[in-house]
Amino acid sequence: ATPDSADAIQSVGGTVADLMIEPFAVLSADTTVAMALDYVVKMHPVTTVTYIYVTGESGKLLGVVAMRDLLLARPGQTMEEIMEREAFVFTPAVKMPEAIAAALAKRHRLYPVVDDAGILVGLVYGWRLFEYVATELSGQAGSMVGVDREERVSTPIFKAFLMRHPWLQVNLLTAFAAAFVVGMFEDTITRIVALAAFLPVLAGQSGNTGCQALAITLRSMTLGELANISVGKLLRKEIILGALNGFFVGLIAALAMYLYASMSDAGDPIILAAVILIAMIGACIGSGIFGVLVPLTLRRFGADPAMASSIFLTTFTDILGMGLMLALATTLLM
Amino acid sequence: ATPDSADAIQSVGGTVADLMIEPFAVLSADTTVAMALDYVVKMHPVTTVTYIYVTGESGKLLGVVAMRDLLLARPGQTMEEIMEREAFVFTPAVKMPEAIAAALAKRHRLYPVVDDAGILVGLVYGWRLFEYVATELSGQAGSMVGVDREERVSTPIFKAFLMRHPWLQVNLLTAFAAAFVVGMFEDTITRIVALAAFLPVLAGQSGNTGCQALAITLRSMTLGELANISVGKLLRKEIILGALNGFFVGLIAALAMYLYASMSDAGDPIILAAVILIAMIGACIGSGIFGVLVPLTLRRFGADPAMASSIFLTTFTDILGMGLMLALATTLLM
Repeated sequence: ATPDSADAIQSVGGTVADLMIEPFAVLSADTTVAMALDYVVKMHPVTTVTYIYVTGESGKLLGVVAMRDLLLARPGQTMEEIMEREAFVFTPAVKMPEAIAAALAKRHRLYPVVDDAGILVGLVYGWRLFEYVATELSGQAGSMVGVDREERVSTPIFKAFLMRHPWLQVNLLTAFAAAFVVGMFEDTITRIVALAAFLPVLAGQSGNTGCQALAITLRSMTLGELANISVGKLLRKEIILGALNGFFVGLIAALAMYLYASMSDAGDPIILAAVILIAMIGACIGSGIFGVLVPLTLRRFGADPAMASSIFLTTFTDILGMGLMLALATTLLM
Repeated sequence: ATPDSADAIQSVGGTVADLMIEPFAVLSADTTVAMALDYVVKMHPVTTVTYIYVTGESGKLLGVVAMRDLLLARPGQTMEEIMEREAFVFTPAVKMPEAIAAALAKRHRLYPVVDDAGILVGLVYGWRLFEYVATELSGQAGSMVGVDREERVSTPIFKAFLMRHPWLQVNLLTAFAAAFVVGMFEDTITRIVALAAFLPVLAGQSGNTGCQALAITLRSMTLGELANISVGKLLRKEIILGALNGFFVGLIAALAMYLYASMSDAGDPIILAAVILIAMIGACIGSGIFGVLVPLTLRRFGADPAMASSIFLTTFTDILGMGLMLALATTLLM
């Protein structure tokens, strides 16, 4: 791997051009099988030739000869006579997820890359495509919590600290936003202290619902599935899921609040239970929407969606979950 | 892929045996090049033969002949004369991460698999190994928040609901544990309501620190790196990182509490700031330890570490972060 292509592997949303190497084993159409065999034998340095690429004038790719076809042909036949004319090719601009989908279906060892005029401009190994997607996906789980794609168990402590710490500081600033929202409702909490106990419940559930939507959106972005499905349809799905999940989780949480408030004499248990249920449904719907929109928006602005999404998302979901519960309680009970 | 091998791809910690197919293109040592070429031509159904496997009595693998070597040999030579005797082989028990590391170094299209006696028992395609690790790693980010490895943007809503909802309900139960801890300190919160605003800050930071340690531990488990590093060394690293991260994040949070308490006249600002700093350091150290121990313990009991870890981990970190802050404040200020 050249340094350039190694860098490209790290970039999100690369193309076939990033992994392309110089063409080799390129012969003209009138080359005979005997000459081609001679060429394969004499190649220096010895490279494993899997396919011979047959080009015409100005380097246009005319066809591909597999080693096996060369073996089965008579020595006097030309490349033109035995080549496969409808060879599967990539263009340099093919996006990585699309290329990986094709590679998983074709499973060739090596793919020719041609430009719009059909000129052979490079070759790309199948394993490079798989290595690329494995690298991308392996980074995703860690990136979502500020762990660098490069960090391993063996990374020195101070280096790991420098990689992880900035993310925690940014997250702290966003946590202050949530703290500020909670602080706005100090009077409500002082009078109905049961609400304080339910702060982590609301924050936790809306955060989880948002992260589920985020995980699906990130996975689909990496695997290139969003090309076929509209954002509107994805949003509709997460809104319905948020409503369903919020309702059934909210029912249990509301029951818990009812029992808690009945015992502690903190306020009207039925209204408090209703506050929890409504807040949970609203927060889960909003979190599902944010889980889809945050990574899509970040990618539009060129940021790494896996890394940055969770910071923004948890801020939104914390404020939404806790803010909605406290605002509803303040409106209905104060 | 047979149903059996497809299931095996889903399992964590599979072996080469799970991806193995029946051997083909197996010839005896005295087969001539002419006979081998004839065999390659006549194979039905036509399979792309990349290597010929040369076996002796009782199926012992003697060597491998690449298509290219067949091409360069004289028709009268035997397989024994032209075969590579030191061929790279797997045994069926080789663990997946080890096999993938080897495949990334060797980059062969197909690998022979032999048993302890050297008998050729199967073949494994290189792309199957890469497909396996990509599937494993792609599942990790989603599994950490209860999103099934199989779920895609195109998964029907009701099916997605059934897959995601149980995870949210289990998480709700664990959130109640955190709520219960907060509820135990109701009196403290009623008197120092500033603490309520800092509940999401403590929960958020300890959760993030724990998830960073979890992400590194999961990544290393998948890539097979934990074989070379002791758990003690890993714990030591995360304890030091937790202390460093907790200290520097805690300083900022303590400053914020000092300013907040000074303005709101909620209690001694210096003691409250000290409470935040000490709680943050303690919670981040504890979260780092849990981030390592939870996935290792779950794997020992046969559970999917990516899926189950985050539920246990966030419960621990919530209770640790918020409980430590409230307990310290109660001890020092009440």
